[in-house]
Amino acid sequence: MTTRVISLNTDIGEGFGAWQIADDAALLGIVTDANLACGFHASDPDIMRRTCEVAATRNITVGAQVGFDDLRGFGRRFIEVDPATITNDVLYQLGALSAFTAVAGRKTGYLKIHGALYHAAVARPEYADAVVAAMTLYDATMPLMCQPGTSLFDAATAAGLRTIAEGYIDRAYTAEGLLVPRSIAGSVITDLDECVSRALQLAMENRITTFDGTTIEVAADSLCIHSDSPGAPRLAHAVREALEGAGVVVAALGTRDSA
Amino acid sequence: MTTRVISLNTDIGEGFGAWQIADDAALLGIVTDANLACGFHASDPDIMRRTCEVAATRNITVGAQVGFDDLRGFGRRFIEVDPATITNDVLYQLGALSAFTAVAGRKTGYLKIHGALYHAAVARPEYADAVVAAMTLYDATMPLMCQPGTSLFDAATAAGLRTIAEGYIDRAYTAEGLLVPRSIAGSVITDLDECVSRALQLAMENRITTFDGTTIEVAADSLCIHSDSPGAPRLAHAVREALEGAGVVVAALGTRDSA
Amino acid sequence: MTTRVISLNTDIGEGFGAWQIADDAALLGIVTDANLACGFHASDPDIMRRTCEVAATRNITVGAQVGFDDLRGFGRRFIEVDPATITNDVLYQLGALSAFTAVAGRKTGYLKIHGALYHAAVARPEYADAVVAAMTLYDATMPLMCQPGTSLFDAATAAGLRTIAEGYIDRAYTAEGLLVPRSIAGSVITDLDECVSRALQLAMENRITTFDGTTIEVAADSLCIHSDSPGAPRLAHAVREALEGAGVVVAALGTRDSA
Amino acid sequence: MTTRVISLNTDIGEGFGAWQIADDAALLGIVTDANLACGFHASDPDIMRRTCEVAATRNITVGAQVGFDDLRGFGRRFIEVDPATITNDVLYQLGALSAFTAVAGRKTGYLKIHGALYHAAVARPEYADAVVAAMTLYDATMPLMCQPGTSLFDAATAAGLRTIAEGYIDRAYTAEGLLVPRSIAGSVITDLDECVSRALQLAMENRITTFDGTTIEVAADSLCIHSDSPGAPRLAHAVREALEGAGVVVAALGTRDSA
Repeated sequence: MTTRVISLNTDIGEGFGAWQIADDAALLGIVTDANLACGFHASDPDIMRRTCEVAATRNITVGAQVGFDDLRGFGRRFIEVDPATITNDVLYQLGALSAFTAVAGRKTGYLKIHGALYHAAVARPEYADAVVAAMTLYDATMPLMCQPGTSLFDAATAAGLRTIAEGYIDRAYTAEGLLVPRSIAGSVITDLDECVSRALQLAMENRITTFDGTTIEVAADSLCIHSDSPGAPRLAHAVREALEGAGVVVAALGTRDSA
Repeated sequence: MTTRVISLNTDIGEGFGAWQIADDAALLGIVTDANLACGFHASDPDIMRRTCEVAATRNITVGAQVGFDDLRGFGRRFIEVDPATITNDVLYQLGALSAFTAVAGRKTGYLKIHGALYHAAVARPEYADAVVAAMTLYDATMPLMCQPGTSLFDAATAAGLRTIAEGYIDRAYTAEGLLVPRSIAGSVITDLDECVSRALQLAMENRITTFDGTTIEVAADSLCIHSDSPGAPRLAHAVREALEGAGVVVAALGTRDSA
Repeated sequence: MTTRVISLNTDIGEGFGAWQIADDAALLGIVTDANLACGFHASDPDIMRRTCEVAATRNITVGAQVGFDDLRGFGRRFIEVDPATITNDVLYQLGALSAFTAVAGRKTGYLKIHGALYHAAVARPEYADAVVAAMTLYDATMPLMCQPGTSLFDAATAAGLRTIAEGYIDRAYTAEGLLVPRSIAGSVITDLDECVSRALQLAMENRITTFDGTTIEVAADSLCIHSDSPGAPRLAHAVREALEGAGVVVAALGTRDSA
Repeated sequence: MTTRVISLNTDIGEGFGAWQIADDAALLGIVTDANLACGFHASDPDIMRRTCEVAATRNITVGAQVGFDDLRGFGRRFIEVDPATITNDVLYQLGALSAFTAVAGRKTGYLKIHGALYHAAVARPEYADAVVAAMTLYDATMPLMCQPGTSLFDAATAAGLRTIAEGYIDRAYTAEGLLVPRSIAGSVITDLDECVSRALQLAMENRITTFDGTTIEVAADSLCIHSDSPGAPRLAHAVREALEGAGVVVAALGTRDSA
């Protein structure tokens, strides 16, 4: 019998200056992987430094959460930029974060794409290629955390990059294994117990019951805890407890000490 | 007889988006060391990428030119920030630039402080310490390019950091080896021939004739060419030609290929 | 016997994009004057539009709260700018806000200076003059909300500007009628009952018991409710109730409909 | 016989901080209408103040040139924002500029849309409506400077707004009176003599010879001089001289002193 291992990831460091958005302190006590904003859609050098230090003491892997250069829009607005700019913006953010992970004695564990840039990279091959190019240029051994089945995930795989398959416990899936758009009623699951049982299903069976009631197979190396809802720490705690109670090992993927 | 070796450095990449300020293309054909802005007082990821690629093909060493986070003020306005923020801002800029030097197959060669942050680091020990702390944390083998005799230079030396002594061919020196303030008439030397003969004096004798006519010893590993005057490329060219004509080897210091 | 009238003011609209800092909705149900940030240290056009609309429906006077151009520092960091830039930055912010107050059928009621710019304007005559110049140029009938006794208040008065004397219910006063610095223990009053009784003393007697126990006269046209503490709405509510219970009329000063 | 009157407009104030892009000083000696950037895609309060003062002494009408909130992209990148944000951003920019035109003793003469926001407003009815809403809310007597025949021009007219029909002397027209896309060879006219003769044709006949050789009628109240080409002042001068030599009165439209 194989022991199932799963990581729990959440968005971290999404404040800016005097502003905060999530309960980072609480979440950093529960998750195993922290998707740290890099100053383009949120965060700043002080937040990044502090977060990397805390993460290191708790053995949390820090990944780079990169987005459009748009603080006012929190990275949620599509900006029609040149694909070359995407590559360069991702390189800049990766480099900036890596100064802080290195100072904390670690390496940046993975890359995750935030908000409108994620949607653009999933929808437009030239944007997916621009992200993949940045990763290949920067560090071809760094994995991309991404939902399997998307064109972005496939582009990364095709380029020989490693991937971390991400699963969503609070979002309904289509029969094809993609997410039901938020505009459709029932696409976002708010019931804590249902989220927990979906977490167990994803982690233990690598399967999920879809929006139309069928059950499909989905790879899931890491489960996403959305950090910006008020109940995020409570949900994260419940999920972790249930997983560990069921014998699943909750552990960071991609932990890499600095050379 | 020792062969004298000197480097010529200039500020590069100080545009932003659609804006430019210096004739980077011309200057990158003459200097040996490029102090590349890192996006806080000037520059952006596209400019940084392009500049690092050009520099690599011409074997120019790229140094990080770091400043206050102040595009509107071009880094020339003092901002009363916490010293810890200085450290974190320098780390962020160093990391961001290093992504681009690494992608170009090189390493960031040195650190130079820009504008108001330089003046603050020279005037306030806690700011000098904050810069030194960033360098020590990030890469203790990276040299600081700085005028010898300043408290910043001394702080770096005391912390065990390497230094690149910078000389100024277009600024009058005091008898103590520091710069005469710009507010004093005659402090800025605009005559090309005088700049050239000062370059020769600094490079070949490590001496300079001061504002009051005495001659003092000054270390000079690299001569600064101010990039933002219209005649910068012409001056740089004349200086280089005169140095080479006198048998001085004009070469980059601190060239470091990426591991 | 005169009926005492007092206004209650608070900082409003200090979010930015997705970020919020205070419970604006609750505070806009209690205060009479809203110091609305204008996009330089906080706020953005969407927040300003929405806030002005809500304020208009509740008959709250909106004043311009202007600061340094420094979102990352929340306007709390001194920036060594040219006094002419202060004047121009204040004009820009006043103009921008006035588009929104006008669209809501009102006029911008007053000017208040935020954070580090306030401290600079109090400490440096050339900065006070720069603020006063902006007001005189823009609208010489617009009052300045400011603590009486400061050099800024005096500069405004000397220039013939109207003033709104501001009183602080949660900050200790010196015998000279100025604020005890925050660095001194006891300078910030956190006890709700004490704040309420100080509000009554200021509003009904125009007097305050100072840090050293004496009682002094202080003008107070408006009492400041600091919005960024968690208990701000509760405190504001208690103060308003106590004032009204004591027969004080709590009403906006400087209400001006658009022509 | 009617005397023909035409205005010459150009983009002005498109620097930021230490950066400049056009020869504003020269252009402000030739044109009659200045489309002044308002700090979102370019410009800052110091540039705006100075430009409004110079324009006033030369009797040049200042119009608001508004764009996306995107300094790095110079307003040339489409940003998928809510239409309500367009309205609010235009209001903010209009208000900010109007502080400076008022201080200079004038009123903001008109609105012109810059770059990607212009293209979005022409292509998307909800964006055109958002711009028209801002103008209607702010000052329903303010004209929109815009190319006739576009949906934006029509939306403004339908809403009862005044318009200033803009003609292009250096861009080829389609038979429908719109511009041939820049991607097509021959769409941009660089020959000075041809630009001058097109200026005469537009100003004196309200007609233009199109890309395919036919001649069509086009309204033209103002001719656009693109400011960012190196020869802009020379072209502007030649156009003005030719127009005046042919008896055309070159004068600002929409001049409005402040009440």
